[in-house]
Amino acid sequence: MEIGREVKIVEVGPRDGLQAESDIVPTKVKIELIDRLTRAGFANIEAASFVSPRWVPQMADGPAVMAGISRNESTVYSALVPNLKGLEHALESQVDEIVVFGAASEAFSQRNINCSIEESVSRFLDVVRMAKARGLRVRGSISCCFGCPYQGDVPVNSVADMVRRFAELGCDEIDLADTIGVGTAKQVGRVVAAASREFPTTQIAGHFHDTYGQALANIVSAYDAGLRIFGCPFAKGATGNVATEDVLYLMRGMGVETGIDLDTVVDAASFISSAIARPSSSRAGRALLAKRTAA
Amino acid sequence: MEIGREVKIVEVGPRDGLQAESDIVPTKVKIELIDRLTRAGFANIEAASFVSPRWVPQMADGPAVMAGISRNESTVYSALVPNLKGLEHALESQVDEIVVFGAASEAFSQRNINCSIEESVSRFLDVVRMAKARGLRVRGSISCCFGCPYQGDVPVNSVADMVRRFAELGCDEIDLADTIGVGTAKQVGRVVAAASREFPTTQIAGHFHDTYGQALANIVSAYDAGLRIFGCPFAKGATGNVATEDVLYLMRGMGVETGIDLDTVVDAASFISSAIARPSSSRAGRALLAKRTAA
Repeated sequence: MEIGREVKIVEVGPRDGLQAESDIVPTKVKIELIDRLTRAGFANIEAASFVSPRWVPQMADGPAVMAGISRNESTVYSALVPNLKGLEHALESQVDEIVVFGAASEAFSQRNINCSIEESVSRFLDVVRMAKARGLRVRGSISCCFGCPYQGDVPVNSVADMVRRFAELGCDEIDLADTIGVGTAKQVGRVVAAASREFPTTQIAGHFHDTYGQALANIVSAYDAGLRIFGCPFAKGATGNVATEDVLYLMRGMGVETGIDLDTVVDAASFISSAIARPSSSRAGRALLAKRTAA
Repeated sequence: MEIGREVKIVEVGPRDGLQAESDIVPTKVKIELIDRLTRAGFANIEAASFVSPRWVPQMADGPAVMAGISRNESTVYSALVPNLKGLEHALESQVDEIVVFGAASEAFSQRNINCSIEESVSRFLDVVRMAKARGLRVRGSISCCFGCPYQGDVPVNSVADMVRRFAELGCDEIDLADTIGVGTAKQVGRVVAAASREFPTTQIAGHFHDTYGQALANIVSAYDAGLRIFGCPFAKGATGNVATEDVLYLMRGMGVETGIDLDTVVDAASFISSAIARPSSSRAGRALLAKRTAA
């Protein structure tokens, strides 16, 4: 963590955000977007996904995107990596960090990753070992930490178990993700406390979705429980993820330094909203743009 | 507060929500809406406004609305009252509670109420005295407790001063309203603490707007600071107020009893959204409706 930066925001828009778009976004638009986010001051940008292009055609140009961006030395550029093949592409593209993933829900793991939680972790053993040997950071992302679309409730112990597994695997940072946005404030406090018993609190990130409008309340609760890393995408019209702008507005109001310039993020969001022809879903983003127009 | 009801939600949709609609909503639609909200279990519904019809034509049918609704004995029906003339209408309509209003910002008071804060309070002296003499509850609503569109920051002391004035006036309940939705979580804790030094915490209500997406985070912060009354309207497509559905989803998740049936509120919101041809702005409302459709 840099001096003066109390909270780290992981901007996942170029990957998690654009991935959901059905029309292919041109490579040069992705590059300009990432460059704008770099200039805004993000310490970590999720820039690509090296899954099979047959799974996610939108992410097929990962190597070209990584080759085209203007890097900032103090920014970590991450990519999702599902296997050794993906790691190979990640190494060729010189990403700084890979993201491996699993779920706290057995039902979700079976349905979405086609294997048990146990198997999903063991599949990453070689990937993580090799990535670490090559000097890459590794982030482990855990889906369904606050509820599952298939099994409903997810016990706090299941989350803690998964955190321990990713810790043992050698992850440098671990995400607790509310994949379907069903978590609420007090629950977040309990889950973070349980995860903190397995892994250093300052290396745990909260990724909250706004499906039920709860994301910011959950972030405040997670902050109060000690989390200092939050993952979110600038708004791009899709519901689900909480908008980075709203999180930055919150942090600014709380007097918490993020090192990120909110106005530059609002501009980046305007750029991509117009490039992909979608209105912004960020309330703070819309309000700030309206104020500019009025001024 | 009833036994088993830990948090009271004041549903302000029929007044604060519909007031912003430019097309006049038919009286019978307003009546059906309030009846649906009564059946949902709200302990307090803001049902009318007895301001001059020249100011707010939408609210001109207040007496007809109050005469037409099916009242529940344990529900408090409130109306906004600006002066003695308004109180007269309120008494004729047998409202249970009147709402008087002021601002914590001198600039806002001058521009929106056309007088100083001092004058605005003294104008309500006779209104409140007469209302109390006739057995009505009185709620004092304070605008701009977390920021002002004209003067910007509002000192915590200004809020505390206004709470003290409304307390001395004899109010039974006092609202802290974030009129322009600029407040953030830690600030809310400080303002509530200051207000609590002037008036019993359990009789203070938080009214938060979602202009910058902060409302639910602010509600959690206010709840942690001791507030147990929250005012909000079911979503009706307009940005600004936080949606009741999102608040109810939060409270249910926190295990806090409100006595209100969320599904009935979602139905009431669907009813009014279709009656006034506006999509719902509630994220929880939309998500719950989508789940029903999928089921």
